Amino acid sequence: MRTHYCAQLNENDVGKEVVLCGWANSYRDHGGVIFIDLRDKTGLIQLVCDPADSKEAHKIATRVRDEYVLIAKGKVRLRGEGLENPRLKTGKIEVVVDKLTIENESAPLPFIIGDTNVNEEIRLKYRYLDLRTKEAYETFELRSKVAIAARNFLDENGFLEVETPVLTKSTPEGARDYLVPSRLYPGEFYALPQSPQLFKQLLMVAGFDRYFQIAKCFRDEDLRADRQPEFTQIDVEMSFCTEDEVIAIAEGLIKAIFTASGIEVQTPFRRMPYHEAMENYGSDKPDLRYDLKLVDVIDIFEDTELKVFRDIAQYKKLNRIKALPVKNGADTLTRKDIDELTNFVAKFGAKGLAWVKVKEDGDLQGPIVKFLSEDEKNRLIERCGVEAGDLIFFGAGAKKTVLDYMGRLRAEVAKKLGLIDKDRYEFVWIVDFPMFEIEEGEVKIKALHHPFTMPKNVDSEDIEAMTSEAYDIVLNGVELGGGSIRIHKPQIQKKIFEILGISDEEAREKFGFLLDALQYGAPPHGGFALGFDRLVMLLTKRDNIRDVIAFPKTQKAQCLLTHAPSPVDPEQLKELHIRIREPKKV
Amino acid sequence: MRTHYCAQLNENDVGKEVVLCGWANSYRDHGGVIFIDLRDKTGLIQLVCDPADSKEAHKIATRVRDEYVLIAKGKVRLRGEGLENPRLKTGKIEVVVDKLTIENESAPLPFIIGDTNVNEEIRLKYRYLDLRTKEAYETFELRSKVAIAARNFLDENGFLEVETPVLTKSTPEGARDYLVPSRLYPGEFYALPQSPQLFKQLLMVAGFDRYFQIAKCFRDEDLRADRQPEFTQIDVEMSFCTEDEVIAIAEGLIKAIFTASGIEVQTPFRRMPYHEAMENYGSDKPDLRYDLKLVDVIDIFEDTELKVFRDIAQYKKLNRIKALPVKNGADTLTRKDIDELTNFVAKFGAKGLAWVKVKEDGDLQGPIVKFLSEDEKNRLIERCGVEAGDLIFFGAGAKKTVLDYMGRLRAEVAKKLGLIDKDRYEFVWIVDFPMFEIEEGEVKIKALHHPFTMPKNVDSEDIEAMTSEAYDIVLNGVELGGGSIRIHKPQIQKKIFEILGISDEEAREKFGFLLDALQYGAPPHGGFALGFDRLVMLLTKRDNIRDVIAFPKTQKAQCLLTHAPSPVDPEQLKELHIRIREPKKV
Repeated sequence: MRTHYCAQLNENDVGKEVVLCGWANSYRDHGGVIFIDLRDKTGLIQLVCDPADSKEAHKIATRVRDEYVLIAKGKVRLRGEGLENPRLKTGKIEVVVDKLTIENESAPLPFIIGDTNVNEEIRLKYRYLDLRTKEAYETFELRSKVAIAARNFLDENGFLEVETPVLTKSTPEGARDYLVPSRLYPGEFYALPQSPQLFKQLLMVAGFDRYFQIAKCFRDEDLRADRQPEFTQIDVEMSFCTEDEVIAIAEGLIKAIFTASGIEVQTPFRRMPYHEAMENYGSDKPDLRYDLKLVDVIDIFEDTELKVFRDIAQYKKLNRIKALPVKNGADTLTRKDIDELTNFVAKFGAKGLAWVKVKEDGDLQGPIVKFLSEDEKNRLIERCGVEAGDLIFFGAGAKKTVLDYMGRLRAEVAKKLGLIDKDRYEFVWIVDFPMFEIEEGEVKIKALHHPFTMPKNVDSEDIEAMTSEAYDIVLNGVELGGGSIRIHKPQIQKKIFEILGISDEEAREKFGFLLDALQYGAPPHGGFALGFDRLVMLLTKRDNIRDVIAFPKTQKAQCLLTHAPSPVDPEQLKELHIRIREPKKV
Repeated sequence: MRTHYCAQLNENDVGKEVVLCGWANSYRDHGGVIFIDLRDKTGLIQLVCDPADSKEAHKIATRVRDEYVLIAKGKVRLRGEGLENPRLKTGKIEVVVDKLTIENESAPLPFIIGDTNVNEEIRLKYRYLDLRTKEAYETFELRSKVAIAARNFLDENGFLEVETPVLTKSTPEGARDYLVPSRLYPGEFYALPQSPQLFKQLLMVAGFDRYFQIAKCFRDEDLRADRQPEFTQIDVEMSFCTEDEVIAIAEGLIKAIFTASGIEVQTPFRRMPYHEAMENYGSDKPDLRYDLKLVDVIDIFEDTELKVFRDIAQYKKLNRIKALPVKNGADTLTRKDIDELTNFVAKFGAKGLAWVKVKEDGDLQGPIVKFLSEDEKNRLIERCGVEAGDLIFFGAGAKKTVLDYMGRLRAEVAKKLGLIDKDRYEFVWIVDFPMFEIEEGEVKIKALHHPFTMPKNVDSEDIEAMTSEAYDIVLNGVELGGGSIRIHKPQIQKKIFEILGISDEEAREKFGFLLDALQYGAPPHGGFALGFDRLVMLLTKRDNIRDVIAFPKTQKAQCLLTHAPSPVDPEQLKELHIRIREPKKV
């Protein structure tokens, strides 16, 4: 129907007859001539409907209102001197219309397109209007381009995209499953996959060697700001590979994705053992765009007069005293800032936030200074590498709590002092995760990894010291994804289940088919997954996951556009052999 | 871990040190030397473990059994004269092993890999073994390549891949939905999409202009041989387009897909109005690889002595008398063949199958000939274009029944006479579908199209004559997909709902959000979908849809590998506010 898209036209097209299609972004009558800004996915162009050129087109133009759908035939000409619009890509030209068709009308809109002050609920209800902005189109254009780039990279590296089932059985991620009642098998249910984990491992057993999929995954969890009930991940698995080889593929993939987004990144990325990330940054997803680092000072306080520190310093394995030196902090952080930071860390279990400033003369100042010996002060200054004008915060207490709140303090200070360069991309692999997490006497597999993760030192007697061949990729403090080398030998798998207290029966019921598969010649294999929605969010610098999903759900898992979920016909439930459980009457 | 894949090696690699990884496809001890055929995704290569080369490797080789996972280091050499294996791509070479690792063992297999005589249930239960054949790998390799080619073609043509929700509301295809109970909204359910139809239309309203998706779709129907509960379609939609423009994109896409599969196809494809397809081929998905065609002969029998034909010929609108002339049929079809074909059409409602043969002298022969006048015979011979040695079948009766069984007869005769060239690809667009189907007084939308299809002559009083801007693409008698131009004006949509007897209330409840969207400036738009599984099936010449799906379900919608569906924990149901409806006790 069209000869060009609106913003494809430029000065070189002057004199051309064109047909354009799109929406009336705005219109105005100026001295009997009607000017319409016509919009399509590429942008805007000005249409001129002058009765001197075409009476008929002008007459139709008088009926045009916001968001009417138009087809306009006309000739491109230069705007007159002084009439150019430098804010518009096509601002030097306009189209003199000789034929105008109103292809469809529009009722008055519930909100102005692009108005971000409109309540999100209204925007989600009319998502098709919310998506009419240039910004939205460009976000989904990037999302599409990035997916193509990812696929082409993986294809070129010998990976096959294989689709795994959506109607399937529970997977081992341990979150809550979405269930689908079966019509043919009364009382039985499919589960929607939390990931293609088991299937991709089975494809390795099948000898497919290199698999990937951009896969929909499902978790029926209470939603945080950056979670959705269904999300997309780039899922990769390969055989006969070492941890280094998997990491190299992941780096190549990330590089291809960023290149497609116009961002150059340097590979290989740095790697950091989990232990180091926790001790130095108080997080297993450290943001390395700024230079703040925690310093271990517990040994300095072994015999200090400051009783609370001295007591804590007696148990070096269970406790931590961490310093966070802040360059120029004595000058840049006000008393009010420090109070706010004290309140901030209190939310995460800190019982206070000790601090000292380094004075001009090099001596320390602050509420705790009077308890410190000269030797302690000197060792502190040396250990933290501080000088005049700097400030040191202290966190002291149980290891886990201190690392957590000092990590958060680090990020908060960086934010407060504007230390974060938004244009930097700092990637880091976190490696050497502990295999198990021991909490209140119970052995758990380390968060985000599953019981098929290969341990590095499986024969060790000390399960606390056992690390895993798992790796997470972190960008600017956000976990993009991760993976592991998997267990491919039945006897190792058996041992891990034993340590985890998973009985043979439970293991068989949940993962019996995987355990079977491991018996028939499973190759060594491993892989990773990247959260695709979050990746697109970072690439487009949007801060809401809903901005990068075409038809998102609310944090309460509702689609306000289609009204899903919704009640269904009782006949449907009957066919599915279920009934609704009526709430108990009180 | 490896330096090469097995079948990458050839004579040029002689002398090279290599490391290979894979499975013991077979092994044999020949005079104290062990020969192992090592297999990976690329194929086989022979490993030689001679104690004269490495005592240790040979010792390990004695433990190797079928499907053990091996890593072999060694040197490539030419096989001796007369020892070459011409059936193997690597048959001129072998690898002399100096280091062999058994990376994993394998229990004895439940069946021999690649044995197609094994019961399908067993093969599906151990799908990861069933997929270990070269044929399976190549099928999924093609599937992956074809998907990449489709995406790149659409990307290059300005289409964005946009993911639409899986947890959503009922869509208008009218098949049974899979439902997902909501945990947060007691008594409410999501539905899995039967297609992204409504969402893709909303994306057009949003101004996205060109959308595609390779999308999972779901239908809870009783399964035929070529159906699965979840299937994949290439789904496309575009704005400001004519039927011709959509068809051109579909043809470009199909061409790109076939080219990626090594098959050249010529575009544009021919087009055939629905009416012509039905009258000439007795099917709206005619197989055009062979030259058989139905001929209308009802007028010839208006005054015939053959009473049954004469009676039928009195009602030309409701009835049909169709001839199927078969070149050389008098010689190639035996009496037994004709009896079989008579039984065949009887299954589809034929009350008999009249036939005549053309004798050497040009006269006709057969049970009905004695009732025919000279004039009728001459007109028949001329109309059907038959000559000596040919045969004509006749179908007579109610239009729908006759067209159906004569269409099936046409295909069956082609099969019997070996007229089908398996290497030909005959595409045809079926166009100008009637908009409505009137069955027993009830107006229905024509099968496979939905109530959003644009009628061609909406102001016609005769709804039977109303055709739609819908088009199906047929390849070799198989429907690959289809689409339509959609209704974008609320008033036309309203009229169609009226004709269909869909009340305002019902329309609002089911598609309210689409009707809303049409009010806010919906552009003209249309699109299509191609069945991706079926396409891959045709491209790989497999005749079972399960062969092209990595983890398929049985015709009873079960996954025999994971045992889905399966019972779940009663606690889970409680959280979802449902209970199982116990079967009535008799």
